[in-house]
Amino acid sequence: MVNNGNNIGHRNVLQLQCEPIECVRIGFVGLGVRAKRAVHRMMHIEGCRITALCDLVEENIEEAKGIITEQGGEAPTTYCDNDGWKRLCRQPDIDLVYICTDWASHADIAVYAMQCGKHVATEVPAATTVADCWRLVDTAEETQRHCIMLENCCYDEFELCVLNMAQQGKLGEIIHAEGSYLHDLRERIATNDEGGRKWSNWQVEFMSGHNGNPYPTHGLGPVALAMGINRDDRMKSIVSCSSKAVGDNSLQGNMNSSIITTEKGHTILVQHCITLPRPYSRSFLISGTEGFAQKYPVQAFAFSPDSDNVAMGEECNRLMEQYRHPFVEMYKQRGEELCGRRWIDYAMDSRLIHCLRNGLPLDMNVYDAALWSCLVELTDISASNGGTPVEIPDFTRGQSSQYERKVFS
Amino acid sequence: MVNNGNNIGHRNVLQLQCEPIECVRIGFVGLGVRAKRAVHRMMHIEGCRITALCDLVEENIEEAKGIITEQGGEAPTTYCDNDGWKRLCRQPDIDLVYICTDWASHADIAVYAMQCGKHVATEVPAATTVADCWRLVDTAEETQRHCIMLENCCYDEFELCVLNMAQQGKLGEIIHAEGSYLHDLRERIATNDEGGRKWSNWQVEFMSGHNGNPYPTHGLGPVALAMGINRDDRMKSIVSCSSKAVGDNSLQGNMNSSIITTEKGHTILVQHCITLPRPYSRSFLISGTEGFAQKYPVQAFAFSPDSDNVAMGEECNRLMEQYRHPFVEMYKQRGEELCGRRWIDYAMDSRLIHCLRNGLPLDMNVYDAALWSCLVELTDISASNGGTPVEIPDFTRGQSSQYERKVFS
Repeated sequence: MVNNGNNIGHRNVLQLQCEPIECVRIGFVGLGVRAKRAVHRMMHIEGCRITALCDLVEENIEEAKGIITEQGGEAPTTYCDNDGWKRLCRQPDIDLVYICTDWASHADIAVYAMQCGKHVATEVPAATTVADCWRLVDTAEETQRHCIMLENCCYDEFELCVLNMAQQGKLGEIIHAEGSYLHDLRERIATNDEGGRKWSNWQVEFMSGHNGNPYPTHGLGPVALAMGINRDDRMKSIVSCSSKAVGDNSLQGNMNSSIITTEKGHTILVQHCITLPRPYSRSFLISGTEGFAQKYPVQAFAFSPDSDNVAMGEECNRLMEQYRHPFVEMYKQRGEELCGRRWIDYAMDSRLIHCLRNGLPLDMNVYDAALWSCLVELTDISASNGGTPVEIPDFTRGQSSQYERKVFS
Repeated sequence: MVNNGNNIGHRNVLQLQCEPIECVRIGFVGLGVRAKRAVHRMMHIEGCRITALCDLVEENIEEAKGIITEQGGEAPTTYCDNDGWKRLCRQPDIDLVYICTDWASHADIAVYAMQCGKHVATEVPAATTVADCWRLVDTAEETQRHCIMLENCCYDEFELCVLNMAQQGKLGEIIHAEGSYLHDLRERIATNDEGGRKWSNWQVEFMSGHNGNPYPTHGLGPVALAMGINRDDRMKSIVSCSSKAVGDNSLQGNMNSSIITTEKGHTILVQHCITLPRPYSRSFLISGTEGFAQKYPVQAFAFSPDSDNVAMGEECNRLMEQYRHPFVEMYKQRGEELCGRRWIDYAMDSRLIHCLRNGLPLDMNVYDAALWSCLVELTDISASNGGTPVEIPDFTRGQSSQYERKVFS
């Protein structure tokens, strides 16, 4: 499973900086619900232009094109056939391929796009197998292209605030953390419908054949950044246990719980459940030697030595003000005007375009994408073997520690 | 590890009923902080009498004796030497030996007491090794004596309410549950002091040599009862991961997370941490096919189909009223008058005496005591082997399913 040395001779892309791009030209592959929202956002972000659209459904292309032209944008080149995504990747006036297709196709498209010299932004998860995670890393190193996974939960306000606290040492050494995706999607699965839009069969099909955590990155991403994973620590092994499938929605009936151990001896609990009636939660929790933060079901902080003096409500708000992350200042207000509660997507895309325009490393790199995504397969392996520990590859090939921990700044 | 058949010929004690005892005569072994509170409670519970006291510290005996005589009780026989507990167990006018010594000695005393024909109530954990758990079970079966572990958290109001809901089917099939002991005890460990009382060195010493969850029963007990463990399901295997020890209080610095899988394919997360600054939590959480309940950090319920309609505050209180467990009606008011927030201990002891006086099965049996306690050793084994799954013995030897699920009534 470890792929050390495969790519000797290629520079790692841990802090990849590329030529600044004055106006980032974007090609979208996959134009479902989330992609069309992204098209809309990009029309309001300075320094970018959508030059290509690809989908297998003509209607999706027309809707996305409509969003662009309504905002006064030029009609982009469109592709509506099985090989369209390849021709899009080869189209010269594209800097960034933005992938919103079904999960299983993300890696193929990302690899080909990088091989065509494009940067890549892909929806979560970036890949669904360990082998594909390595292909992403190998290709990014060979081509020296960016490959960012669009883990929007990393841009949520509380998570960013905690990242800020962590980087300022307010929480001490983070010993344990938790991050999950607990979302009652039974109705959406049963009716195949999300707000009038057809919900994707491929998602249900993928999950029905999966015995682990098919969707780990929303919970894991913000936790991994706060803990400095791929910076000054790395994930070493994982154990994963799934309950049986239940009820009518047994398409993916598992409640999955997994525990990751890091090289420094820290632990991370990651859970997934979409078929039981429980309130939405990403159970974001950070427990350090100096402080504690928890987002679900209520936002709260506590600090040493008086850990039972819990900051909630007003006091929690005061702390969130005090440790507000610069990205919140920069993007929240405008993002809310445009996208309501989805302002975090606006912040994420704005940062992406900003970094590309200024030749900066992106907030998250291909190693993050590969590491977080590889748990899709590794949880399945562990859970299918009664929770047996499984090693987690070091996609950085041992090179992460030479870089500063700081991310997201 | 499995001990099937060892005791063929002895009747199991799953629903053990013994001769009613009009006035339960109690001998206390171990008279530390918790025991003296129990002595005080027993003086206010009808149908019992304290006839013996044993401790290695004369001062403890005197204090306990003072509590008894102040309430008009007769001065009990006292024992203050190394073999005192044995002589106490042999003392004829005792029906129940109530054990509040250090963890490691619980099993020896319990086994000897049963061999002397006494019923046993022991503080948590009932034993610290799997072998001792089997000795408890074997001895209880051989002697047909009661052996209850005093897991007081099973008597807390929210937990009893959820048990009630579970037994009435309101939560559907319970697929996943969580129960923990997360308690910032750093100061108590460092100063060896609990409210002016010397805190026990043996506890710190035991934990410092332990790499798993040394104290699993508070979180696990209420969850196990609600899930019908040892009734119509059984624990099958466990994986356990510990973080490294940290800071000045590295006596037991581990944050431990363990996942149990049951025979029916349900999962239980159990956590333990006493050396990080986080708010007190037993993280009691139940996730069923029809409903959801969570006690920490806030009390909340949710039910199918509208699981984002979370009942908290007033609405939660209304549900707790509607599903109030009879024990709360019976014991809470009087218990609070006597013991404040420790009324749950009063309820627990009252139930114990009530069942002994009426020849009823106790609320929890020796199989519960053994099962919940055996995780002390099994979590250590798993965590010391990188989270490798460990089998959990069936202390009932496959006989639990012949009994009705209902407990606590």
